Amino acid sequence: MGVASAMPETAEHWAEKIRAGDVRAIARAITAVENQNALADDLLKQLFPATGAAYLIGCTGAPGTGKSTLVDRLAARYRTAEHSVGIIAVDPTSPFTGGAILGDRIRMQGHAGDSAIFIRSVATRGFLGGLARGTADIALVLDAAGKHYILVETVGVGQDEVDIVRLADCTIVVLVPGMGDDIQSMKAGLMEIADIFVVNKSDREGADRLEQQVQAMLELAPERNGWKPRVIRTVATEDRGVLELTQAIADFRKHSDGSPARAAKKVEYWKRRLVERLEQQLLHRAIPGREGARRLDACAIEVAERRKDPFTAVQDLLRDAGL
Amino acid sequence: MGVASAMPETAEHWAEKIRAGDVRAIARAITAVENQNALADDLLKQLFPATGAAYLIGCTGAPGTGKSTLVDRLAARYRTAEHSVGIIAVDPTSPFTGGAILGDRIRMQGHAGDSAIFIRSVATRGFLGGLARGTADIALVLDAAGKHYILVETVGVGQDEVDIVRLADCTIVVLVPGMGDDIQSMKAGLMEIADIFVVNKSDREGADRLEQQVQAMLELAPERNGWKPRVIRTVATEDRGVLELTQAIADFRKHSDGSPARAAKKVEYWKRRLVERLEQQLLHRAIPGREGARRLDACAIEVAERRKDPFTAVQDLLRDAGL
Repeated sequence: MGVASAMPETAEHWAEKIRAGDVRAIARAITAVENQNALADDLLKQLFPATGAAYLIGCTGAPGTGKSTLVDRLAARYRTAEHSVGIIAVDPTSPFTGGAILGDRIRMQGHAGDSAIFIRSVATRGFLGGLARGTADIALVLDAAGKHYILVETVGVGQDEVDIVRLADCTIVVLVPGMGDDIQSMKAGLMEIADIFVVNKSDREGADRLEQQVQAMLELAPERNGWKPRVIRTVATEDRGVLELTQAIADFRKHSDGSPARAAKKVEYWKRRLVERLEQQLLHRAIPGREGARRLDACAIEVAERRKDPFTAVQDLLRDAGL
Repeated sequence: MGVASAMPETAEHWAEKIRAGDVRAIARAITAVENQNALADDLLKQLFPATGAAYLIGCTGAPGTGKSTLVDRLAARYRTAEHSVGIIAVDPTSPFTGGAILGDRIRMQGHAGDSAIFIRSVATRGFLGGLARGTADIALVLDAAGKHYILVETVGVGQDEVDIVRLADCTIVVLVPGMGDDIQSMKAGLMEIADIFVVNKSDREGADRLEQQVQAMLELAPERNGWKPRVIRTVATEDRGVLELTQAIADFRKHSDGSPARAAKKVEYWKRRLVERLEQQLLHRAIPGREGARRLDACAIEVAERRKDPFTAVQDLLRDAGL
């Protein structure tokens, strides 16, 4: 270790270790991606050709639906079948509460000693909606590391969460009995993203009614690419229904893999990512370093005080950056 | 009308009519801004120096909290005091339901014949989170038209809504009894944005407890710039508590107007807007017209099929655009 670790590591070497499944190299890569470390892009570029094989499952639902337990049980099922698993828990509220980080540690204990399972919480939201991008890049790292399944867990169905779920191959929406009103208000958003509905805590009163409501919603909704979303009842804490859920996921995978709709979704996804990255790069050119930040501040003050209009301000910034 | 309306209108002339409060000119301007019409930027540039005098009140809350009624009553109060009012109702879910547009018409009837009140619903979400930007530009139009108060009504506290609320001078969060669980999960987000809490439908059971919960939250939260958010009880349908709400808004306005924190918030807001606009302009240069869109599509396909990595793809796009 001593001498070698003092040497600067190349992206190539680092990527090699990740592809070999080295847990520490993976963990460092995720931290680098989250912090937008200077080497992160180089690393992702090295890793990219090795990606595309993992199956990414998005799991979303309101707080208190038992998503985390469900994701843990799902991961355990896949591990039993000798598949390697990565879990990304996205919790945009955790900067306030620290909840995700703590939960992370507690959860890791359950899978302690199993190097084929990797759990990471994401909680940072960048200046420009970086939550979805960060999560996608972490998924790329886990994909390159050879994880068979990547489970991404998000809270709610806000725009950030929908963006994250858009990158998933299969999307699970978790509901629990006693949320009737929320379903009404979330209906449109949910119907658009769910490939599978899970009624968790289905031993509770109201589970039948909830399942009926979801089925009624599905009757009204147009079929998407020949798939009618399944409704699976689970009691995640007792591992009930989890096997059925893996079966529903397998069915959906069989249905969609290689389909034109799936290919089109992937192209659409990458189009968005390329646009994001283009914007980011161009912005760095337009607002270069400290000097650029200083010019931006000065312009914002002039505009706020109505001494300059925002259109002229943007033209001035572009001209000053030689663009 | 005949001959004059066939002539192309200049942005200068259009802006003049808006500043004079011409309702049709205002309505056309808002449509132009929403559709990102070619003349919209020119028009906004003309209008900009005439903006900055309106007081912008953001009002947010979950569906079913009675926000719209509250905003209507608030508008009526301001009208009684001879102030002119603009209302922007933002409903990102309405493309699915058409609800906003219908509600719009119903609401307009209540203020029919009052040309000093202007109501407009915004429902389109652009490719790149254009909801907040569109709303801000509509607010500029109403500001230039001399509206004293602009009321912006949004659903929920997702990122889009928070961005919209960030542009407000004063932010009202509307709660109703019987939402206890939601408050817990939304706590952090709410505390961050609310200058005033409204407990609406306060004649319902649970109003006391809700008010206590909010007060307890406020006890724990750090004071922001010397202001402790107020909690106002209303029954909007009966116009109860609305006068008290206008008083709380006036108090907050007195507290924050001219304060360094307020000035800093405005500069921060314009910084974000300038960055957005820079990105948009640069993106148009990087992906020019149909040819640019075709190149982007081709790159996205190559990346989705792992024939090219996204980093190289972005470099290629920049090079092809001569950037």
